[in-house]
Amino acid sequence: MAEILLFGAGKSASYLIRYFLEHAEEKNYYLHVCDPAAEALRSYHNSSRLVCHSLSVDETASCAERVKSADIVISLLPAFLHEKVALLCLEHGKNLVTASYVDAKMQALDAAVKAKGLCFMNEAGLDPGIDHMSAMKLLNDLKKQGATIFSFESFTGGLIAPDCDTNPWHYKLSWNPRNVVLAGSGSSARYLDNHELRFVSYPQLFQRRQVFEHPKYGSFEGYPNRDSLGYQKVYELDQVRTLLRGTLRKPGYCSSWNVFVQLGLTDDSYQMDLGDSCSGRNFFNSFLPYHRSKSLEEKVMEVPGLNLNGADMARIAFLGLFSNDYQLPQTKGSPAAILQAILEEKWRLEVNDRDLIVMIHRIGYQLDGKEHFIESSLALEGEDARYTAMAKTVGIPAALCAEEMLSGRFSKSGVLIPIYPEIYIPVLENLVPYGIKYEERQK
Amino acid sequence: MAEILLFGAGKSASYLIRYFLEHAEEKNYYLHVCDPAAEALRSYHNSSRLVCHSLSVDETASCAERVKSADIVISLLPAFLHEKVALLCLEHGKNLVTASYVDAKMQALDAAVKAKGLCFMNEAGLDPGIDHMSAMKLLNDLKKQGATIFSFESFTGGLIAPDCDTNPWHYKLSWNPRNVVLAGSGSSARYLDNHELRFVSYPQLFQRRQVFEHPKYGSFEGYPNRDSLGYQKVYELDQVRTLLRGTLRKPGYCSSWNVFVQLGLTDDSYQMDLGDSCSGRNFFNSFLPYHRSKSLEEKVMEVPGLNLNGADMARIAFLGLFSNDYQLPQTKGSPAAILQAILEEKWRLEVNDRDLIVMIHRIGYQLDGKEHFIESSLALEGEDARYTAMAKTVGIPAALCAEEMLSGRFSKSGVLIPIYPEIYIPVLENLVPYGIKYEERQK
Repeated sequence: MAEILLFGAGKSASYLIRYFLEHAEEKNYYLHVCDPAAEALRSYHNSSRLVCHSLSVDETASCAERVKSADIVISLLPAFLHEKVALLCLEHGKNLVTASYVDAKMQALDAAVKAKGLCFMNEAGLDPGIDHMSAMKLLNDLKKQGATIFSFESFTGGLIAPDCDTNPWHYKLSWNPRNVVLAGSGSSARYLDNHELRFVSYPQLFQRRQVFEHPKYGSFEGYPNRDSLGYQKVYELDQVRTLLRGTLRKPGYCSSWNVFVQLGLTDDSYQMDLGDSCSGRNFFNSFLPYHRSKSLEEKVMEVPGLNLNGADMARIAFLGLFSNDYQLPQTKGSPAAILQAILEEKWRLEVNDRDLIVMIHRIGYQLDGKEHFIESSLALEGEDARYTAMAKTVGIPAALCAEEMLSGRFSKSGVLIPIYPEIYIPVLENLVPYGIKYEERQK
Repeated sequence: MAEILLFGAGKSASYLIRYFLEHAEEKNYYLHVCDPAAEALRSYHNSSRLVCHSLSVDETASCAERVKSADIVISLLPAFLHEKVALLCLEHGKNLVTASYVDAKMQALDAAVKAKGLCFMNEAGLDPGIDHMSAMKLLNDLKKQGATIFSFESFTGGLIAPDCDTNPWHYKLSWNPRNVVLAGSGSSARYLDNHELRFVSYPQLFQRRQVFEHPKYGSFEGYPNRDSLGYQKVYELDQVRTLLRGTLRKPGYCSSWNVFVQLGLTDDSYQMDLGDSCSGRNFFNSFLPYHRSKSLEEKVMEVPGLNLNGADMARIAFLGLFSNDYQLPQTKGSPAAILQAILEEKWRLEVNDRDLIVMIHRIGYQLDGKEHFIESSLALEGEDARYTAMAKTVGIPAALCAEEMLSGRFSKSGVLIPIYPEIYIPVLENLVPYGIKYEERQK
C-alpha cells in the first residue's frame, strides 16, 4: 500500500489524479488530495481510493498530519506555495515532487534534504520537466555516437488545437492565467548565442523572436524564456556556442502582446481603482497620453516602436479594449490582475476545446568532421477543457517521477531536477503509451 | 543648548552641516553626526560644536545612545535605512526629519508617532520638499484671491550649470547615482490629465515627455514622476482636471536614456559576471541580438521604436559603450550597478563644477470668469562639487524644518510632510537669504 499525497487540484492536476486512480487497485495506491476545493473531485471520480481533504496549505497542523502519513508528496500548487509543503516534507522525512522551477528558497533546502537522505524532485512537469528529460536523452545519445554538441535550442508552447482556434491571438488559457500575464516580467532573459552572452530586457522580450516550423502544426514564433545560461552546466554543454530555451506562440501573438508590455497593462506593482464600472476602452485609454482630438486607435497606432498592423489592432479589439460597450469583469486590482480577468473571459478554453502542446528541440552537432542539425519535436492535443494536453504533460511525468521515487528505483538525494538517466529513461519510456513521444528529423 | 543628531553625511549633507555649525555659537547648537565616514568631516569643519561618530545605523545600541541624548534627529541616509532611525526615535521619544518620500513602512508608524505626541517630518528636502512647500503657498495664495485651480503641474530637475556642461547628456551626478539609474523603475507613474487617469509604464516613461522653457536656462524636457495622484488630497486639489509631478532633464537626455530602459541596462534584478575585464562595447552588445554581419551601431539604430538620431548615438558613445578600448570600471553586478559605475566615471561632477537646480510649477486657475496660467520657478546654481545646489536645496529646508520643530513653533504630531502654513511659511521665508526663492510670471 502506498499513500500518495497531492497538494493542489487545479488546472494541471486532472491527469495526475486520473493516473493514480486508474492504477490504484493494481498497485494498491491511495490518493489523498489537499485543496480547498478538493471535494469537487468526487463529481469526477467515484473511487474509494480517493481521499479528499478540504485544506489550504496555510492550515499547517492539518497539512502536517497528512504529510506524516504519506509515502510521497506531490505539490502542484502555485510555485510560491511549494516552500510550505517542502518544509513539512523535510520535517517529516518525505520525498517531494513538483513541476515548478527550483527557486532560491527551494535550492536553499538542498543540504538539509541531502542530510536526511530525501529527494525533492522539481521541474518534473512539461516545461520545466520533460523538456529536460527529452533534451538530456537526445544529447546523451548524440554524445554516445561521438558527436560534439555546438548548439542547443529548446522551445515549448501551450497552445490551442487548430480546429478549436477561434480567436485572432490563436491562444486560449490551458494553465495558470496569472503566469500567462506575467510571463517574462520580473527579470531579463539570458542566453548564449554564438559564444556571446545575451541579455533580453522585458520591453525587448516579445520583439526578440525567431520562427519555427512544425511539420504538422505550421509556423510558430519563439521568444527567450528566463535564464537559459543556468542550464549550461546542468545539460553538460560547457563548450556549446548557442544555448537558448524559449516559449512558442503562433505568429502575431508576440507583436500584439508587446503592446501590453510597452504600455504597462502587465504591471503588477500597483493597484488601480476604476470605479464601479469601466469599459474596456476607458481602461486601455488610461495607458495612453491624453490628446484633444486623436482617437484611442490613432494614439495606439502612433506609439513609437509598436509599428502595429491591422492584425494587431484586431487582436486588441478582440479583447474588448477598443469597446465602449465591453464592461471590465474586474475594476480594482493591478493592471495585470485586470488584464487577467479580461483574458479569462476572452481566452477561455470552452468545455469541448482541445489544447495543444508543442515542444521543439533544435540541436547542432559535429560528427565525422561535418556539422549536422537535428530537430526533435513533441506535439500533443488535449481531450477537452479538463483533460488538457497541458495537464497531461505536466501531470503524467510528475506522476511517473513520483512512482520511480516511491519504488526505490531512483534513490539520489537532494533538491534535484530530472536530468539523470536513472529517472528520465524509465519516465520517457512510460510516457509513450500516453501519446507523449518525440519525433526526430535531420535538418 | 540643543543637540542635533544627523544620520548620514553623504552628498546631500554638506549645507545642512554647514548651516548648523554656522549658527552653533549663536543658538547654542551641538551637531552630532553618525556616519561610517563621519571623521572625514573634520577636514572641512574645525568646530568644537561638531561631534563625529563613526557609526553605521546597523550598530543599533550605539545609535540608540546617540538618539537618547539628542533634541532632534535628522536622517539623510538612503531612504531604505530611515526605518531603523525612525524606530529608535519612536522608542526614545524624539522628533525626526527626513528628505525622503513617506513609504509604507514610515506611514505605518503614524499612529504610534501620534500617540507619543511626536512629529516625523518627511519630504522636507528639495523634491520632495520645497516643491510641496512652494506649491502649497502658491495654491493657497491663489485660493485666497478667490481663484479656482483647475490644473497643477510641477517639475524639478537636478542638472548642471551651463558653463560646466561639458557632455552631450547635459547631465552630471549631484546626488545618489543609484537613484539616477533606477529613476522610474519599479512601478508605473500615475497622473491626472484632463479629468482622466493616466498610467505610464516604465518602457513608456522617457517617451512621455513635455517641453518647458525657463527664461534664463532655456529648454527642458519633463517626464512623469511616481504617483502624482497621491498628492491630490494632500494639495487639496480634488476638483482639478490635471495633476502631474515630474522630473526635468535637458532635451535629448530622455530619448537616449530610453535606449537603456528598453534594452535592460537599468535592470537591477539579476547579476552579470563579465569576467575580469570587459569593454564598454562588449557590455552594450550583450543587450542586443547576435548578427553575423551587422555592427553594434547598426543593430542599435535598428531596434524597433528607438528611432535614434546622431545625437543619441553621440551620447551613447560618450559613455564608452561603443568603445573597444574603454574598460568597464566594474564587471560584476546587476546591469544597473555596472551602468552606475560607468556613469560615476563619465558624469562625475568635477571639483569646481557647479550644479543647477530648476523647479517649475505651472498652475491653471479660473478667476473672475477667465482662465489664467501662472508659472513659478526656482533656479539655483551650486558653488562647487561639495556645496552643490542639490545639497543646499535638500539640506537647508530640512535644517529649517528641524529648527521650527526644535523651537516648538511647529507642534503637529504624526508622520507628516510640510504642507502646513505653520511650517512652510517660515521655512520659505528663511530660504530666501540662501538664494532659494521663486519667481512668478503670468503665462
